[in-house]
Amino acid sequence: MTITLLTLFPDFFVSPFSMGVIDGAIKNSSIDINIVNLRDYGDGNYKKCDDYPYGGGPGLVMTASIFEKYFDKNKKGHTVFFTPTGTPLKQSMVKRLSDEDNITLILGHYEGIDKRVEELYVDECISIGDYVLSGGEIPSLVLIDAISRYKNVLGNALSVLSDTFEENANGLLEYDQYTRPPSIKNLSVPEVLLNGNHKCIDEYRRESSLIKTFNYRPDLLTKIELTKKDIKTIFNYLIEKSN
Amino acid sequence: MTITLLTLFPDFFVSPFSMGVIDGAIKNSSIDINIVNLRDYGDGNYKKCDDYPYGGGPGLVMTASIFEKYFDKNKKGHTVFFTPTGTPLKQSMVKRLSDEDNITLILGHYEGIDKRVEELYVDECISIGDYVLSGGEIPSLVLIDAISRYKNVLGNALSVLSDTFEENANGLLEYDQYTRPPSIKNLSVPEVLLNGNHKCIDEYRRESSLIKTFNYRPDLLTKIELTKKDIKTIFNYLIEKSN
Repeated sequence: MTITLLTLFPDFFVSPFSMGVIDGAIKNSSIDINIVNLRDYGDGNYKKCDDYPYGGGPGLVMTASIFEKYFDKNKKGHTVFFTPTGTPLKQSMVKRLSDEDNITLILGHYEGIDKRVEELYVDECISIGDYVLSGGEIPSLVLIDAISRYKNVLGNALSVLSDTFEENANGLLEYDQYTRPPSIKNLSVPEVLLNGNHKCIDEYRRESSLIKTFNYRPDLLTKIELTKKDIKTIFNYLIEKSN
Repeated sequence: MTITLLTLFPDFFVSPFSMGVIDGAIKNSSIDINIVNLRDYGDGNYKKCDDYPYGGGPGLVMTASIFEKYFDKNKKGHTVFFTPTGTPLKQSMVKRLSDEDNITLILGHYEGIDKRVEELYVDECISIGDYVLSGGEIPSLVLIDAISRYKNVLGNALSVLSDTFEENANGLLEYDQYTRPPSIKNLSVPEVLLNGNHKCIDEYRRESSLIKTFNYRPDLLTKIELTKKDIKTIFNYLIEKSN
């Protein structure tokens, strides 16, 4: 797939794109990244890309003209604009976007972008969370990293499927992980993980996931079918906690 | 404030830290970034930092030993671990963290981190959203960018205060912005923004924010006090839409 980034800060991406899963996806040719410097489409000798907002107010607004000039000359794939007012990004959206052949990401900056850019060129507005960032560069890294995970043969492909929030996962937060050494400071690895009984290990991990989800993200529990055994696990946890 | 990053990918940050608000906050000395290469704390000749999970399963887990070695020698500020199982990041958490003198960010990778790291060293687990990333590098960029906005004199300090999700904002999504030219393709700037009547402009912007929030993030409307006029605006919008 081709991912085109329309940005005022093309150099931002130099180091993040040269390592890890993104670099892996570029090297195995499953994604091709095309960075467009919006400054090249600016107006006049100074290549102006922003201007004061109509109606007053603080900050500068990116002009619609730069996008008009770009899109008049270039083919447009599925176009995403990152904005705090967009739909909150979910893993299912990442999966869907990873199946596109051609996506174009519009990266805002300053106070925002002229509203008409959205009306003329944007197919989908996405927010990565309820916090304010200085621009669309970091949100686009989030999306490209999340997409690249599907495009890599990670250490083990199974680990993509079992991760929290994946459709194929069980809808719970991931269970706790431990590795060597068996004891560090005063903390030991739970006995059950050392005995090699895979039925017991699976049960222990299900319980660990359930209680973690119950404590940190109870909203996720309302979205899945809990077994009688799961409910008993949660009740036992509550009884133990109240003693 | 000092922000310490514990990472296996120190070079990831070279270009993102050299521009924009983060660079601004570093240059005006309001943040000082200390990048620690966890590989330096690895075990043996190969500086091993990860190992197979106890109990089996895909992927590799970062060992507790590397963190033990680091924290045994180094002062520990407020320590944050990025994980999909953490508390979802909100702007109010960014504001609170920006008031700390010393924060340490633990950046995970592979399948995760030995659970005991969390128990021994972590004060706060944070998730930036319900999607899966390859590691903690991008979440740490999110947090540092969001914090840096408070540490910069942005183009205009007021623009920090009026942004969506800021405490000082009105709890609604931000109104639409427009800049020159007044007409592009077949789209014109709303007349009211051109007439210079600031009472009308403020009213128009409140209505624009209300309807945008009603359409895209109705959950935010349940968290604020709506005036009678606001409710009338929403009703009128619904009536207009149904005609």
